[in-house]
Amino acid sequence: MTAVRIVEVAPRDGLQNEKVNVTTETKLALIDRLAQAGLTEIEATSFVSPRWVPQMADHDAVMRGLVRRPGRKYPVLVPNLKGYQAAVEAGAREVAVFASASESFSQKNINCSIDESFARFAPVFESAKADGVAVRGYVSCVVGCPYEGFVPPEKAADVATRLYRAGCFEVSLGDTIGVGTPASVKRLLDKVAAHVPLDKVAGHFHDTYGMATSNVYASYEAGLRIFDSSVGGLGGCPYAKGATGNVATEDVVYLMQGLGADTGVDLDALIDVAQWISEKLGRSVQSRVARALLAKRGS
Amino acid sequence: MTAVRIVEVAPRDGLQNEKVNVTTETKLALIDRLAQAGLTEIEATSFVSPRWVPQMADHDAVMRGLVRRPGRKYPVLVPNLKGYQAAVEAGAREVAVFASASESFSQKNINCSIDESFARFAPVFESAKADGVAVRGYVSCVVGCPYEGFVPPEKAADVATRLYRAGCFEVSLGDTIGVGTPASVKRLLDKVAAHVPLDKVAGHFHDTYGMATSNVYASYEAGLRIFDSSVGGLGGCPYAKGATGNVATEDVVYLMQGLGADTGVDLDALIDVAQWISEKLGRSVQSRVARALLAKRGS
Repeated sequence: MTAVRIVEVAPRDGLQNEKVNVTTETKLALIDRLAQAGLTEIEATSFVSPRWVPQMADHDAVMRGLVRRPGRKYPVLVPNLKGYQAAVEAGAREVAVFASASESFSQKNINCSIDESFARFAPVFESAKADGVAVRGYVSCVVGCPYEGFVPPEKAADVATRLYRAGCFEVSLGDTIGVGTPASVKRLLDKVAAHVPLDKVAGHFHDTYGMATSNVYASYEAGLRIFDSSVGGLGGCPYAKGATGNVATEDVVYLMQGLGADTGVDLDALIDVAQWISEKLGRSVQSRVARALLAKRGS
Repeated sequence: MTAVRIVEVAPRDGLQNEKVNVTTETKLALIDRLAQAGLTEIEATSFVSPRWVPQMADHDAVMRGLVRRPGRKYPVLVPNLKGYQAAVEAGAREVAVFASASESFSQKNINCSIDESFARFAPVFESAKADGVAVRGYVSCVVGCPYEGFVPPEKAADVATRLYRAGCFEVSLGDTIGVGTPASVKRLLDKVAAHVPLDKVAGHFHDTYGMATSNVYASYEAGLRIFDSSVGGLGGCPYAKGATGNVATEDVVYLMQGLGADTGVDLDALIDVAQWISEKLGRSVQSRVARALLAKRGS
Protein backbone atom coordinates (compact mmCIF):
# COMPACT_ATOMS: atom_id res chain seq x y z
CA MET A 1 0.00 0.00 0.00
CA THR A 2 1.23 3.46 -0.85
CA ALA A 3 2.13 5.46 2.24
CA VAL A 4 1.35 9.14 2.48
CA ARG A 5 2.76 11.35 5.21
CA ILE A 6 0.60 14.09 6.61
CA VAL A 7 2.13 17.04 8.42
CA GLU A 8 -0.56 18.45 10.67
CA VAL A 9 -0.39 22.23 10.90
CA ALA A 10 -3.55 23.16 12.83
CA PRO A 11 -1.83 24.03 16.14
CA ARG A 12 0.40 26.54 14.33
CA ASP A 13 -0.79 27.59 10.86
CA GLY A 14 -4.40 26.93 11.81
CA LEU A 15 -4.68 28.64 15.18
CA GLN A 16 -2.44 31.50 14.07
CA ASN A 17 -5.08 32.50 11.54
CA GLU A 18 -8.12 32.10 13.76
CA LYS A 19 -9.76 35.10 15.38
CA VAL A 20 -10.44 33.33 18.67
CA ASN A 21 -7.40 32.70 20.83
CA VAL A 22 -7.31 29.41 22.71
CA THR A 23 -5.48 28.62 25.95
CA THR A 24 -2.14 26.84 26.13
CA GLU A 25 -3.96 23.97 27.77
CA THR A 26 -6.28 23.67 24.76
CA LYS A 27 -3.32 23.79 22.38
CA LEU A 28 -1.58 21.00 24.26
CA ALA A 29 -4.76 18.93 24.29
CA LEU A 30 -5.18 19.54 20.56
CA ILE A 31 -1.64 18.42 19.80
CA ASP A 32 -1.99 15.28 21.90
CA ARG A 33 -5.39 14.39 20.50
CA LEU A 34 -3.94 14.70 17.00
CA ALA A 35 -1.04 12.44 17.98
CA GLN A 36 -3.50 9.90 19.36
CA ALA A 37 -5.53 10.04 16.14
CA GLY A 38 -2.44 8.79 14.34
CA LEU A 39 -0.77 11.95 13.12
CA THR A 40 2.98 11.56 13.39
CA GLU A 41 4.12 15.11 12.64
CA ILE A 42 2.37 17.95 14.34
CA GLU A 43 3.61 21.49 13.94
CA ALA A 44 3.30 22.66 17.51
CA THR A 45 3.92 26.40 17.55
CA SER A 46 5.97 29.26 16.17
CA PHE A 47 8.92 31.03 17.76
CA VAL A 48 8.12 34.26 15.97
CA SER A 49 7.95 37.41 18.06
CA PRO A 50 4.62 37.79 19.88
CA ARG A 51 4.58 41.31 18.47
CA TRP A 52 3.92 39.78 15.05
CA VAL A 53 1.99 36.68 15.99
CA PRO A 54 0.36 37.15 19.41
CA GLN A 55 -1.52 33.82 19.07
CA MET A 56 1.80 32.00 19.40
CA ALA A 57 3.13 34.01 22.37
CA ASP A 58 2.91 30.91 24.58
CA HIS A 59 5.40 28.96 22.45
CA ASP A 60 7.65 28.24 25.44
CA ALA A 61 4.79 26.87 27.51
CA VAL A 62 3.55 24.78 24.58
CA MET A 63 6.96 23.21 23.99
CA ARG A 64 7.59 22.56 27.66
CA GLY A 65 4.10 21.14 28.17
CA LEU A 66 4.19 18.67 25.26
CA VAL A 67 3.45 15.03 25.94
CA ARG A 68 5.96 13.48 23.58
CA ARG A 69 4.53 10.25 22.24
CA PRO A 70 6.78 7.66 20.60
CA GLY A 71 7.16 7.98 16.85
CA ARG A 72 5.78 11.52 16.89
CA LYS A 73 7.53 14.71 15.84
CA TYR A 74 6.63 18.21 16.99
CA PRO A 75 8.33 20.71 14.67
CA VAL A 76 8.11 24.45 15.29
CA LEU A 77 8.48 27.47 13.05
CA VAL A 78 11.54 29.68 13.55
CA PRO A 79 12.16 32.96 11.69
CA ASN A 80 15.85 33.38 12.52
CA LEU A 81 18.71 32.30 14.80
CA LYS A 82 17.16 33.95 17.86
CA GLY A 83 13.91 32.05 17.30
CA TYR A 84 15.86 28.87 16.65
CA GLN A 85 17.79 29.19 19.88
CA ALA A 86 14.65 29.85 21.90
CA ALA A 87 12.94 26.88 20.26
CA VAL A 88 15.79 24.47 20.97
CA GLU A 89 16.09 25.85 24.50
CA ALA A 90 12.41 25.04 24.98
CA GLY A 91 12.97 21.50 23.72
CA ALA A 92 12.31 21.62 19.95
CA ARG A 93 14.06 18.87 18.00
CA GLU A 94 12.68 19.81 14.59
CA VAL A 95 12.27 23.30 13.20
CA ALA A 96 10.99 24.91 10.03
CA VAL A 97 12.07 28.06 8.23
CA PHE A 98 9.94 29.95 5.75
CA ALA A 99 10.81 31.82 2.59
CA SER A 100 8.56 33.30 -0.06
CA ALA A 101 8.51 32.84 -3.81
CA SER A 102 7.33 36.43 -4.11
CA GLU A 103 9.52 39.45 -3.32
CA SER A 104 6.55 41.60 -2.33
CA PHE A 105 5.17 38.95 -0.01
CA SER A 106 8.60 38.47 1.56
CA GLN A 107 8.84 42.21 2.21
CA LYS A 108 5.33 42.52 3.63
CA ASN A 109 5.30 39.25 5.56
CA ILE A 110 8.79 39.02 7.00
CA ASN A 111 10.07 42.47 6.25
CA CYS A 112 13.05 41.52 4.10
CA SER A 113 13.93 40.45 0.58
CA ILE A 114 14.13 36.79 -0.38
CA ASP A 115 17.94 37.00 -0.40
CA GLU A 116 17.93 38.61 3.03
CA SER A 117 15.69 35.84 4.35
CA PHE A 118 18.25 33.27 3.20
CA ALA A 119 20.96 35.26 4.98
CA ARG A 120 18.87 34.98 8.15
CA PHE A 121 18.52 31.23 7.70
CA ALA A 122 22.25 30.58 7.21
CA PRO A 123 23.15 30.59 10.94
CA VAL A 124 20.01 28.54 11.65
CA PHE A 125 21.19 25.83 9.26
CA GLU A 126 24.66 25.99 10.77
CA SER A 127 23.44 25.63 14.36
CA ALA A 128 20.86 23.02 13.43
CA LYS A 129 23.54 20.90 11.74
CA ALA A 130 25.73 21.13 14.83
CA ASP A 131 22.77 20.35 17.10
CA GLY A 132 21.42 17.51 14.95
CA VAL A 133 18.15 19.34 14.53
CA ALA A 134 16.21 18.69 11.32
CA VAL A 135 15.15 21.78 9.36
CA ARG A 136 12.09 21.80 7.14
CA GLY A 137 11.60 24.58 4.58
CA TYR A 138 8.41 26.33 3.62
CA VAL A 139 7.97 28.28 0.41
CA SER A 140 4.94 30.56 0.41
CA CYS A 141 3.10 31.98 -2.62
CA VAL A 142 4.25 29.20 -4.93
CA VAL A 143 1.45 29.83 -7.43
CA GLY A 144 0.21 33.33 -6.68
CA CYS A 145 0.83 36.26 -4.38
CA PRO A 146 -1.73 38.61 -2.82
CA TYR A 147 0.40 41.57 -3.94
CA GLU A 148 2.00 40.47 -7.20
CA GLY A 149 -0.62 38.10 -8.59
CA PHE A 150 0.90 35.37 -10.76
CA VAL A 151 4.14 33.83 -9.52
CA PRO A 152 6.19 32.04 -12.21
CA PRO A 153 6.77 28.36 -11.35
CA GLU A 154 10.49 28.89 -12.06
CA LYS A 155 10.63 31.45 -9.26
CA ALA A 156 8.95 29.14 -6.77
CA ALA A 157 11.13 26.22 -7.87
CA ASP A 158 14.23 28.37 -7.44
CA VAL A 159 13.38 29.27 -3.84
CA ALA A 160 12.51 25.63 -3.09
CA THR A 161 15.82 24.51 -4.54
CA ARG A 162 17.75 27.06 -2.52
CA LEU A 163 16.09 25.84 0.70
CA TYR A 164 16.84 22.24 -0.18
CA ARG A 165 20.48 22.94 -1.02
CA ALA A 166 20.86 25.06 2.11
CA GLY A 167 20.07 22.00 4.20
CA CYS A 168 16.33 21.47 4.47
CA PHE A 169 15.53 17.78 4.64
CA GLU A 170 12.19 18.57 2.98
CA VAL A 171 10.57 21.53 1.29
CA SER A 172 6.88 22.32 1.57
CA LEU A 173 5.34 24.19 -1.35
CA GLY A 174 2.64 26.52 -0.08
CA ASP A 175 -0.17 27.87 -2.22
CA THR A 176 -0.73 30.54 0.40
CA ILE A 177 -3.72 32.19 -1.26
CA GLY A 178 -5.19 29.00 -2.72
CA VAL A 179 -5.30 30.16 -6.33
CA GLY A 180 -3.62 27.10 -7.81
CA THR A 181 -5.40 24.54 -9.94
CA PRO A 182 -4.12 21.10 -10.96
CA ALA A 183 -2.61 22.60 -14.12
CA SER A 184 -0.54 25.29 -12.38
CA VAL A 185 0.40 22.90 -9.58
CA LYS A 186 1.66 20.31 -12.05
CA ARG A 187 3.65 22.96 -13.93
CA LEU A 188 5.22 23.92 -10.61
CA LEU A 189 6.05 20.33 -9.64
CA ASP A 190 7.66 19.80 -13.04
CA LYS A 191 10.00 22.70 -12.37
CA VAL A 192 10.73 21.67 -8.80
CA ALA A 193 11.38 18.03 -9.71
CA ALA A 194 14.24 19.10 -11.97
CA HIS A 195 16.21 20.14 -8.86
CA VAL A 196 14.65 18.53 -5.77
CA PRO A 197 13.66 14.85 -5.53
CA LEU A 198 9.87 14.72 -5.16
CA ASP A 199 10.13 12.50 -2.08
CA LYS A 200 11.62 15.55 -0.38
CA VAL A 201 8.74 17.81 -1.41
CA ALA A 202 5.45 18.41 0.39
CA GLY A 203 2.27 20.04 -0.92
CA HIS A 204 0.69 22.70 1.28
CA PHE A 205 -2.62 23.71 -0.22
CA HIS A 206 -5.24 26.20 0.84
CA ASP A 207 -8.87 25.78 -0.11
CA THR A 208 -9.61 29.45 -0.77
CA TYR A 209 -10.91 28.71 -4.26
CA GLY A 210 -12.08 25.18 -3.49
CA MET A 211 -9.13 23.60 -5.29
CA ALA A 212 -7.22 22.14 -2.34
CA THR A 213 -8.22 18.49 -2.62
CA SER A 214 -7.96 18.69 -6.42
CA ASN A 215 -4.44 20.00 -6.02
CA VAL A 216 -3.58 17.30 -3.49
CA TYR A 217 -4.88 14.72 -5.94
CA ALA A 218 -3.03 16.23 -8.91
CA SER A 219 0.18 16.33 -6.84
CA TYR A 220 -0.33 12.76 -5.73
CA GLU A 221 -0.72 11.75 -9.38
CA ALA A 222 2.51 13.63 -10.09
CA GLY A 223 4.30 11.63 -7.38
CA LEU A 224 4.01 13.71 -4.21
CA ARG A 225 3.52 11.69 -1.02
CA ILE A 226 3.74 14.37 1.71
CA PHE A 227 0.95 16.83 2.43
CA ASP A 228 0.39 19.55 5.01
CA SER A 229 -3.13 19.95 6.32
CA SER A 230 -5.10 21.32 9.25
CA VAL A 231 -7.70 19.38 11.25
CA GLY A 232 -11.16 20.87 10.80
CA GLY A 233 -9.75 23.16 8.11
CA LEU A 234 -8.58 25.41 10.95
CA GLY A 235 -7.14 28.74 9.88
CA GLY A 236 -8.72 31.19 7.50
CA CYS A 237 -7.07 33.21 4.79
CA PRO A 238 -5.70 36.52 6.08
CA TYR A 239 -5.66 37.84 2.50
CA ALA A 240 -9.34 37.21 1.78
CA LYS A 241 -11.54 37.74 4.82
CA GLY A 242 -14.22 35.08 5.14
CA ALA A 243 -12.46 32.78 2.71
CA THR A 244 -11.38 29.26 3.58
CA GLY A 245 -7.79 28.45 4.49
CA ASN A 246 -5.82 25.25 4.93
CA VAL A 247 -7.15 22.06 3.43
CA ALA A 248 -8.79 19.98 6.17
CA THR A 249 -6.80 16.95 7.32
CA GLU A 250 -9.95 14.83 7.25
CA ASP A 251 -10.58 15.75 3.61
CA VAL A 252 -7.04 14.68 2.73
CA VAL A 253 -7.38 11.44 4.71
CA TYR A 254 -10.72 10.67 3.01
CA LEU A 255 -9.18 11.34 -0.41
CA MET A 256 -6.20 9.13 0.35
CA GLN A 257 -8.40 6.31 1.61
CA GLY A 258 -10.23 6.51 -1.72
CA LEU A 259 -6.95 6.40 -3.60
CA GLY A 260 -5.83 3.38 -1.59
CA ALA A 261 -3.03 5.28 0.15
CA ASP A 262 -2.31 4.79 3.84
CA THR A 263 -1.97 7.85 6.07
CA GLY A 264 -2.02 5.96 9.38
CA VAL A 265 -4.73 8.34 10.60
CA ASP A 266 -7.94 7.15 12.27
CA LEU A 267 -10.62 9.17 10.48
CA ASP A 268 -13.23 8.78 13.22
CA ALA A 269 -10.85 9.93 15.92
CA LEU A 270 -9.83 12.84 13.69
CA ILE A 271 -13.46 13.93 13.26
CA ASP A 272 -13.80 13.97 17.06
CA VAL A 273 -10.80 16.30 17.25
CA ALA A 274 -12.23 18.52 14.51
CA GLN A 275 -15.53 18.83 16.34
CA TRP A 276 -13.90 19.42 19.71
CA ILE A 277 -11.51 22.16 18.55
CA SER A 278 -14.22 23.86 16.46
CA GLU A 279 -16.34 24.09 19.61
CA LYS A 280 -13.39 25.65 21.43
CA LEU A 281 -13.29 28.22 18.63
CA GLY A 282 -16.99 28.84 19.10
CA ARG A 283 -18.28 27.45 15.85
CA SER A 284 -19.49 24.33 14.13
CA VAL A 285 -16.96 22.25 12.27
CA GLN A 286 -16.32 23.56 8.75
CA SER A 287 -14.77 20.70 6.82
CA ARG A 288 -17.04 18.78 4.51
CA VAL A 289 -15.86 15.32 5.52
CA ALA A 290 -16.40 16.15 9.19
CA ARG A 291 -19.84 17.60 8.51
CA ALA A 292 -20.87 14.61 6.43
CA LEU A 293 -19.60 12.02 8.91
CA LEU A 294 -21.07 13.86 11.91
CA ALA A 295 -24.43 14.07 10.08
CA LYS A 296 -24.21 10.34 9.42
CA ARG A 297 -23.48 9.61 13.09
CA GLY A 298 -26.49 11.69 14.04
CA SER A 299 -28.84 9.96 11.63
CA MET B 1 -9.22 25.71 -26.62
CA THR B 2 -11.00 22.77 -25.06
CA ALA B 3 -14.71 23.41 -24.63
CA VAL B 4 -16.54 22.22 -21.55
CA ARG B 5 -20.33 22.24 -21.32
CA ILE B 6 -21.91 23.01 -17.98
CA VAL B 7 -25.48 21.98 -17.25
CA GLU B 8 -26.74 24.29 -14.54
CA VAL B 9 -29.03 22.51 -12.10
CA ALA B 10 -29.61 25.09 -9.35
CA PRO B 11 -33.20 25.99 -10.27
CA ARG B 12 -34.19 22.33 -10.03
CA ASP B 13 -31.74 20.08 -8.15
CA GLY B 14 -30.53 23.00 -6.07
CA LEU B 15 -33.80 24.62 -4.99
CA GLN B 16 -35.49 21.27 -4.56
CA ASN B 17 -33.09 20.48 -1.73
CA GLU B 18 -33.20 23.85 -0.01
CA LYS B 19 -35.28 24.39 3.09
CA VAL B 20 -36.43 27.87 2.08
CA ASN B 21 -38.93 27.99 -0.75
CA VAL B 22 -38.56 30.84 -3.22
CA THR B 23 -41.24 32.44 -5.39
CA THR B 24 -41.83 31.61 -9.05
CA GLU B 25 -40.67 35.13 -9.84
CA THR B 26 -37.35 34.47 -8.09
CA LYS B 27 -36.94 31.17 -9.94
CA LEU B 28 -37.54 32.88 -13.28
CA ALA B 29 -35.09 35.64 -12.38
CA LEU B 30 -32.53 33.02 -11.32
CA ILE B 31 -32.88 31.14 -14.59
CA ASP B 32 -32.54 34.28 -16.66
CA ARG B 33 -29.60 35.61 -14.68
CA LEU B 34 -27.85 32.27 -15.20
CA ALA B 35 -28.56 32.48 -18.94
CA GLN B 36 -27.15 36.00 -19.02
CA ALA B 37 -24.02 34.83 -17.16
CA GLY B 38 -23.34 32.52 -20.10
CA LEU B 39 -24.88 29.24 -19.04
CA THR B 40 -26.46 27.59 -22.05
CA GLU B 41 -28.32 24.71 -20.39
CA ILE B 42 -30.36 25.44 -17.32
CA GLU B 43 -32.52 22.77 -15.78
CA ALA B 44 -35.61 24.81 -15.08
CA THR B 45 -37.94 22.67 -12.97
CA SER B 46 -39.36 19.22 -12.39
CA PHE B 47 -42.73 17.83 -13.46
CA VAL B 48 -42.83 15.48 -10.53
CA SER B 49 -46.00 15.43 -8.43
CA PRO B 50 -46.13 18.32 -5.92
CA ARG B 51 -47.00 15.67 -3.35
CA TRP B 52 -43.41 14.43 -3.63
CA VAL B 53 -41.59 17.64 -4.42
CA PRO B 54 -43.62 20.64 -3.21
CA GLN B 55 -40.78 23.03 -4.08
CA MET B 56 -41.43 22.36 -7.79
CA ALA B 57 -45.24 22.67 -7.64
CA ASP B 58 -45.07 25.81 -9.79
CA HIS B 59 -43.51 23.96 -12.74
CA ASP B 60 -46.22 25.13 -15.14
CA ALA B 61 -45.79 28.76 -14.17
CA VAL B 62 -42.00 28.46 -14.44
CA MET B 63 -42.15 26.98 -17.95
CA ARG B 64 -44.73 29.47 -19.18
CA GLY B 65 -42.87 32.41 -17.66
CA LEU B 66 -39.43 31.57 -19.13
CA VAL B 67 -37.63 34.21 -21.14
CA ARG B 68 -36.14 31.98 -23.81
CA ARG B 69 -32.83 33.43 -24.87
CA PRO B 70 -31.19 32.35 -28.12
CA GLY B 71 -28.80 29.41 -27.84
CA ARG B 72 -30.16 28.48 -24.43
CA LYS B 73 -31.87 25.25 -23.42
CA TYR B 74 -34.22 24.81 -20.48
CA PRO B 75 -34.62 21.07 -19.80
CA VAL B 76 -37.01 19.79 -17.15
CA LEU B 77 -37.19 16.60 -15.14
CA VAL B 78 -40.04 14.18 -15.91
CA PRO B 79 -40.74 10.98 -13.95
CA ASN B 80 -43.13 9.32 -16.41
CA LEU B 81 -45.41 9.86 -19.42
CA LYS B 82 -47.87 11.99 -17.46
CA GLY B 83 -45.07 14.31 -16.35
CA TYR B 84 -43.67 14.35 -19.87
CA GLN B 85 -47.01 15.35 -21.35
CA ALA B 86 -47.51 18.10 -18.80
CA ALA B 87 -43.98 19.38 -19.45
CA VAL B 88 -44.38 19.49 -23.22
CA GLU B 89 -47.81 21.06 -22.82
CA ALA B 90 -46.18 23.79 -20.75
CA GLY B 91 -43.58 24.35 -23.47
CA ALA B 92 -40.65 22.09 -22.54
CA ARG B 93 -38.45 21.14 -25.51
CA GLU B 94 -35.91 19.10 -23.55
CA VAL B 95 -36.62 16.67 -20.76
CA ALA B 96 -34.67 14.42 -18.45
CA VAL B 97 -35.53 11.06 -16.92
CA PHE B 98 -33.85 9.61 -13.85
CA ALA B 99 -32.95 6.06 -12.92
CA SER B 100 -30.88 4.76 -10.05
CA ALA B 101 -27.89 2.45 -10.00
CA SER B 102 -29.12 1.13 -6.65
CA GLU B 103 -32.27 -1.00 -6.26
CA SER B 104 -32.90 0.24 -2.72
CA PHE B 105 -32.56 3.87 -3.73
CA SER B 106 -34.88 3.32 -6.69
CA GLN B 107 -37.49 1.80 -4.37
CA LYS B 108 -37.20 4.53 -1.75
CA ASN B 109 -36.80 7.47 -4.12
CA ILE B 110 -39.21 6.66 -6.94
CA ASN B 111 -41.08 3.76 -5.45
CA CYS B 112 -40.27 1.14 -8.06
CA SER B 113 -37.51 -1.21 -9.12
CA ILE B 114 -34.90 -0.20 -11.68
CA ASP B 115 -36.61 -2.38 -14.30
CA GLU B 116 -39.97 -0.81 -13.50
CA SER B 117 -38.47 2.65 -13.88
CA PHE B 118 -37.33 1.73 -17.39
CA ALA B 119 -40.84 0.49 -18.16
CA ARG B 120 -42.12 3.92 -17.12
CA PHE B 121 -39.61 5.65 -19.38
CA ALA B 122 -40.49 3.60 -22.49
CA PRO B 123 -43.55 5.64 -23.47
CA VAL B 124 -41.64 8.84 -22.66
CA PHE B 125 -38.91 7.89 -25.15
CA GLU B 126 -41.57 6.97 -27.70
CA SER B 127 -43.46 10.25 -27.39
CA ALA B 128 -40.28 12.29 -27.22
CA LYS B 129 -39.03 10.71 -30.44
CA ALA B 130 -42.32 11.51 -32.17
CA ASP B 131 -42.29 15.06 -30.77
CA GLY B 132 -38.63 15.73 -31.53
CA VAL B 133 -37.93 16.31 -27.84
CA ALA B 134 -34.43 15.50 -26.59
CA VAL B 135 -34.23 13.23 -23.55
CA ARG B 136 -31.35 13.36 -21.09
CA GLY B 137 -30.80 10.53 -18.63
CA TYR B 138 -29.68 10.75 -15.02
CA VAL B 139 -28.25 7.86 -13.09
CA SER B 140 -28.20 8.38 -9.34
CA CYS B 141 -26.00 6.63 -6.76
CA VAL B 142 -23.30 5.79 -9.29
CA VAL B 143 -20.65 5.29 -6.60
CA GLY B 144 -22.57 4.77 -3.39
CA CYS B 145 -26.09 4.57 -2.03
CA PRO B 146 -27.41 5.88 1.30
CA TYR B 147 -29.12 2.50 1.88
CA GLU B 148 -26.81 -0.05 0.23
CA GLY B 149 -23.42 1.60 0.65
CA PHE B 150 -21.00 0.61 -2.12
CA VAL B 151 -22.44 0.44 -5.64
CA PRO B 152 -20.38 -1.63 -8.10
CA PRO B 153 -19.26 0.43 -11.11
CA GLU B 154 -20.60 -2.34 -13.38
CA LYS B 155 -24.08 -1.75 -11.99
CA ALA B 156 -23.92 2.00 -12.57
CA ALA B 157 -22.46 1.48 -16.05
CA ASP B 158 -25.25 -0.97 -16.87
CA VAL B 159 -27.99 1.53 -15.96
CA ALA B 160 -26.19 4.28 -17.87
CA THR B 161 -25.91 2.03 -20.92
CA ARG B 162 -29.60 1.13 -20.76
CA LEU B 163 -30.55 4.82 -20.67
CA TYR B 164 -28.29 5.57 -23.60
CA ARG B 165 -29.60 2.68 -25.68
CA ALA B 166 -33.18 3.57 -24.80
CA GLY B 167 -32.70 6.92 -26.51
CA CYS B 168 -31.03 9.39 -24.18
CA PHE B 169 -28.79 11.76 -26.12
CA GLU B 170 -26.62 12.05 -23.01
CA VAL B 171 -26.32 10.32 -19.66
CA SER B 172 -25.38 12.14 -16.48
CA LEU B 173 -23.64 10.07 -13.81
CA GLY B 174 -24.68 11.28 -10.39
CA ASP B 175 -22.66 10.69 -7.24
CA THR B 176 -25.79 11.47 -5.23
CA ILE B 177 -24.21 11.17 -1.79
CA GLY B 178 -20.81 12.51 -2.78
CA VAL B 179 -18.76 9.54 -1.58
CA GLY B 180 -16.74 9.14 -4.77
CA THR B 181 -13.05 9.88 -5.03
CA PRO B 182 -10.98 10.16 -8.21
CA ALA B 183 -10.15 6.44 -8.01
CA SER B 184 -13.74 5.20 -7.81
CA VAL B 185 -14.88 7.76 -10.39
CA LYS B 186 -12.21 6.66 -12.85
CA ARG B 187 -13.14 2.99 -12.31
CA LEU B 188 -16.73 3.95 -13.10
CA LEU B 189 -15.83 5.90 -16.23
CA ASP B 190 -13.76 2.96 -17.46
CA LYS B 191 -16.81 0.73 -17.23
CA VAL B 192 -19.15 3.28 -18.80
CA ALA B 193 -16.79 4.09 -21.66
CA ALA B 194 -16.95 0.47 -22.80
CA HIS B 195 -20.59 1.02 -23.81
CA VAL B 196 -21.29 4.76 -24.05
CA PRO B 197 -19.05 7.24 -25.87
CA LEU B 198 -17.64 9.62 -23.25
CA ASP B 199 -18.78 12.67 -25.23
CA LYS B 200 -22.31 11.53 -24.35
CA VAL B 201 -21.55 11.29 -20.65
CA ALA B 202 -21.81 14.01 -18.00
CA GLY B 203 -20.40 14.08 -14.48
CA HIS B 204 -22.76 15.13 -11.70
CA PHE B 205 -20.81 15.40 -8.47
CA HIS B 206 -21.84 16.33 -4.97
CA ASP B 207 -19.39 17.87 -2.55
CA THR B 208 -20.58 16.03 0.56
CA TYR B 209 -17.10 14.71 1.31
CA GLY B 210 -15.25 17.59 -0.34
CA MET B 211 -14.33 15.53 -3.38
CA ALA B 212 -16.49 17.22 -6.03
CA THR B 213 -13.88 19.36 -7.77
CA SER B 214 -11.34 16.54 -7.49
CA ASN B 215 -13.83 14.24 -9.18
CA VAL B 216 -14.56 16.82 -11.86
CA TYR B 217 -10.84 17.11 -12.47
CA ALA B 218 -10.29 13.34 -12.53
CA SER B 219 -13.21 12.96 -14.97
CA TYR B 220 -11.85 15.74 -17.13
CA GLU B 221 -8.50 13.96 -17.22
CA ALA B 222 -10.36 10.79 -18.22
CA GLY B 223 -12.00 12.64 -21.12
CA LEU B 224 -15.31 13.96 -19.76
CA ARG B 225 -16.33 17.39 -21.05
CA ILE B 226 -19.84 17.82 -19.64
CA PHE B 227 -20.52 18.63 -15.99
CA ASP B 228 -23.64 19.36 -13.96
CA SER B 229 -23.31 21.99 -11.26
CA SER B 230 -25.32 24.39 -9.16
CA VAL B 231 -24.64 28.10 -8.78
CA GLY B 232 -23.65 28.96 -5.20
CA GLY B 233 -23.54 25.24 -4.44
CA LEU B 234 -27.33 25.44 -3.99
CA GLY B 235 -28.97 22.32 -2.67
CA GLY B 236 -27.92 20.35 0.37
CA CYS B 237 -27.74 16.62 0.78
CA PRO B 238 -31.05 15.13 1.94
CA TYR B 239 -29.19 12.02 3.14
CA ALA B 240 -26.79 13.85 5.43
CA LYS B 241 -28.34 16.87 7.12
CA GLY B 242 -26.00 19.83 7.20
CA ALA B 243 -23.73 18.33 4.58
CA THR B 244 -22.89 20.06 1.32
CA GLY B 245 -24.63 19.11 -1.93
CA ASN B 246 -24.04 19.92 -5.58
CA VAL B 247 -20.65 21.17 -6.65
CA ALA B 248 -20.82 24.94 -7.13
CA THR B 249 -20.84 26.12 -10.73
CA GLU B 250 -18.32 28.83 -9.90
CA ASP B 251 -15.90 26.22 -8.48
CA VAL B 252 -16.18 24.23 -11.72
CA VAL B 253 -15.71 27.35 -13.84
CA TYR B 254 -12.65 28.37 -11.80
CA LEU B 255 -11.18 24.88 -12.15
CA MET B 256 -11.80 24.85 -15.89
CA GLN B 257 -10.24 28.29 -16.34
CA GLY B 258 -7.17 26.91 -14.59
CA LEU B 259 -7.12 23.89 -16.89
CA GLY B 260 -7.42 26.14 -19.93
CA ALA B 261 -10.89 24.88 -20.81
CA ASP B 262 -13.61 27.25 -21.99
CA THR B 263 -17.04 27.10 -20.34
CA GLY B 264 -18.40 30.30 -21.88
CA VAL B 265 -19.41 31.45 -18.41
CA ASP B 266 -18.63 34.91 -17.04
CA LEU B 267 -17.29 34.16 -13.56
CA ASP B 268 -17.96 37.65 -12.18
CA ALA B 269 -21.56 37.63 -13.36
CA LEU B 270 -21.95 34.14 -11.91
CA ILE B 271 -20.70 35.29 -8.50
CA ASP B 272 -23.32 38.04 -8.55
CA VAL B 273 -26.00 35.41 -9.18
CA ALA B 274 -24.61 33.22 -6.38
CA GLN B 275 -24.71 36.12 -3.93
CA TRP B 276 -28.17 37.25 -5.00
CA ILE B 277 -29.83 33.82 -4.76
CA SER B 278 -28.08 33.05 -1.46
CA GLU B 279 -29.60 36.23 -0.05
CA LYS B 280 -33.01 35.11 -1.28
CA LEU B 281 -32.42 31.90 0.66
CA GLY B 282 -31.55 33.91 3.72
CA ARG B 283 -27.90 33.07 4.00
CA SER B 284 -24.44 34.09 2.90
CA VAL B 285 -23.00 32.47 -0.19
CA GLN B 286 -21.45 29.07 0.55
CA SER B 287 -19.15 28.30 -2.35
CA ARG B 288 -15.47 28.86 -1.80
CA VAL B 289 -14.82 30.62 -5.12
CA ALA B 290 -17.71 33.03 -4.48
CA ARG B 291 -16.54 33.72 -0.93
CA ALA B 292 -12.96 34.31 -2.06
CA LEU B 293 -13.90 36.59 -4.96
CA LEU B 294 -16.44 38.53 -2.91
CA ALA B 295 -13.83 38.99 -0.17
CA LYS B 296 -11.43 40.25 -2.82
CA ARG B 297 -13.99 42.72 -4.16
CA GLY B 298 -14.58 43.99 -0.63
CA SER B 299 -10.90 44.47 0.11
